[in-house]
Amino acid sequence: METHLQPTDLKNDTLLRALAREPTAYTPVWLMRQAGRYLPEYNATRARAGSFLKLAKSPALATEVALQPLERYPLDAAILFSDILTVPDAMGLGLYFAEGEGPRFERPLRDEAAIARLAVPDPALELRYVLDAVRETRRALAGRVPLIGFSGSPYTLACYMIEGSGSNDWRHVKQMRGARPDLLHRILDVNARSVTDYLNAQIEAGAQVVMLFDTWGGSLNTADYEEFSLAYMRQVLAALRPAPSIVFTKDGGAWLESIAASGCSAVGLDWTVDPREARRRIGGKVALQGNLDPAVLTTPDANVREQARRVLDAFGTAPGHIFNLGHGISPQARPDAVAALVDEVRAYSKKLRTGHG
Amino acid sequence: METHLQPTDLKNDTLLRALAREPTAYTPVWLMRQAGRYLPEYNATRARAGSFLKLAKSPALATEVALQPLERYPLDAAILFSDILTVPDAMGLGLYFAEGEGPRFERPLRDEAAIARLAVPDPALELRYVLDAVRETRRALAGRVPLIGFSGSPYTLACYMIEGSGSNDWRHVKQMRGARPDLLHRILDVNARSVTDYLNAQIEAGAQVVMLFDTWGGSLNTADYEEFSLAYMRQVLAALRPAPSIVFTKDGGAWLESIAASGCSAVGLDWTVDPREARRRIGGKVALQGNLDPAVLTTPDANVREQARRVLDAFGTAPGHIFNLGHGISPQARPDAVAALVDEVRAYSKKLRTGHG
Repeated sequence: METHLQPTDLKNDTLLRALAREPTAYTPVWLMRQAGRYLPEYNATRARAGSFLKLAKSPALATEVALQPLERYPLDAAILFSDILTVPDAMGLGLYFAEGEGPRFERPLRDEAAIARLAVPDPALELRYVLDAVRETRRALAGRVPLIGFSGSPYTLACYMIEGSGSNDWRHVKQMRGARPDLLHRILDVNARSVTDYLNAQIEAGAQVVMLFDTWGGSLNTADYEEFSLAYMRQVLAALRPAPSIVFTKDGGAWLESIAASGCSAVGLDWTVDPREARRRIGGKVALQGNLDPAVLTTPDANVREQARRVLDAFGTAPGHIFNLGHGISPQARPDAVAALVDEVRAYSKKLRTGHG
Repeated sequence: METHLQPTDLKNDTLLRALAREPTAYTPVWLMRQAGRYLPEYNATRARAGSFLKLAKSPALATEVALQPLERYPLDAAILFSDILTVPDAMGLGLYFAEGEGPRFERPLRDEAAIARLAVPDPALELRYVLDAVRETRRALAGRVPLIGFSGSPYTLACYMIEGSGSNDWRHVKQMRGARPDLLHRILDVNARSVTDYLNAQIEAGAQVVMLFDTWGGSLNTADYEEFSLAYMRQVLAALRPAPSIVFTKDGGAWLESIAASGCSAVGLDWTVDPREARRRIGGKVALQGNLDPAVLTTPDANVREQARRVLDAFGTAPGHIFNLGHGISPQARPDAVAALVDEVRAYSKKLRTGHG
């Protein structure tokens, strides 16, 4: 199908041009987890679905919530409504969400036999509901803005697969890394091949950009980040069908140079990274995405607008900035604060470009 | 008394010499939270005390547990047994620990009137139990190794004071920063003056080194870190009685240059910071402390030793490295792994210095 090769079909291709580091009239903006619990209409659809997982597994409802933030705000991208952990779920580990807690797996990977049995799922079979959601969302968007597909990174998937849940110290993962690094590498290799197939299937189904969420790579030291996280993201990126890609390692500010050289089109920055420093360190080699602290969206509009200008000033007007948060939007964000943010990004970034900032 | 001015009284002054960036025969080592729950003898004393807070508030028992790790391991420093949040407790906020959870305050600071009333405690009165513990621990050490005193940083104290507990997003703190930065500055100013008096009282009572634990400064963006955390640590450091000081901002790797220029003697590094990079960035201006991932102490001895050598190789043999973890030791650390670590640091760092590494 290669639908991604016709960006000209898009009514708004600002995101794609920023990812290609071409000039844009303003700074494109989208927000990680923009279809989420801060929106009353999202909560209503989720209540109808019965649970987060049922929502994510219903292509029709996933499409509905993916489009909700676009009805409210002039955002420059839609993102597939899904979870970062669909791949290990498709491997048979049993993803579930205990109420008020993060993701968990029923059968965490701890023994050698289970690790040996781990196999790459076929996206067309075990992850068909995701591909259906991509197709349906893409159709519903009708070219308004590009659609971003995504997956957890191989290491971030492994964290949850081994630990069985979120963790402050990822003890079981790090025990395996210390005692049996070969087993960890085996898991990561299966994950990298699985994520590659999965993202390629998303691109084939209509995703015009893909993003790797490496939420937990930042819990590693420098040498281990390279060996256990970045190396496997590089493997994924090298085997992707042609589509722009974004890599976001939360708490990965120390490694921007090597992330920028991994083969991605853009690097996501959390809010602890100074954008001026990031530009100085990686120049115009890739685009940059970020980096407002999501907590700002719980503060008064005047502060939201001021902090948005601060981020835009720091990134500057050189091509290749995509405005975003430095982490997913929180359920406590005020919908009005999001409106103020998107408005300020559009208006102020236009002003900066015309030299009237 | 000025007992800290006679380092020659010390049988082992390796730590003080490393802090002064003088050559040492080996790399000194101590571990954050070295008197802690991984030690059965600590758990026994704590059980006798009845609770963590009762233990910390009894100078005799605090002295007992502060010395326990030194009986097991040839460590190069003792650290006062206390909590980072004693200062706001002395301000009347009511520190307590719910079983199995982190610290909490009974009366979090949320309204303007309470913030206006906030006053600097007199350490000789409201924190006398800490000063007694410093004196008693110092006496019990009898010059074996230096004693490190400490406090939470002004910003880290404010985080718990405003939020009332630990947090993933420090929402209330960031709301105050966005809506009423003047109130946050008022709290930070009181905290900075309180921490100054408190650390000076610890130095007078016998602490030979002091450390600021800025556990949560790393949750800020660069501009806010400077304005709300580092500026107030600088204020504390400028008013300290003469004693070497260590500043540790967890997740502060982006700001090493400015931390190193804050007036401290040493900068603590978490494990996400590459020591070679840290050396390159701040040269020999201050000593460096760190930076092994505490999770390594749950892995087999062979891996503990390998990772210790990796850290030592990365820091190199230039004077001014204090071996430590990149965060507090975890309750799951194996006491034997700590023995292997301390042994390897001593032996391998000696070898490196004699060129037989």
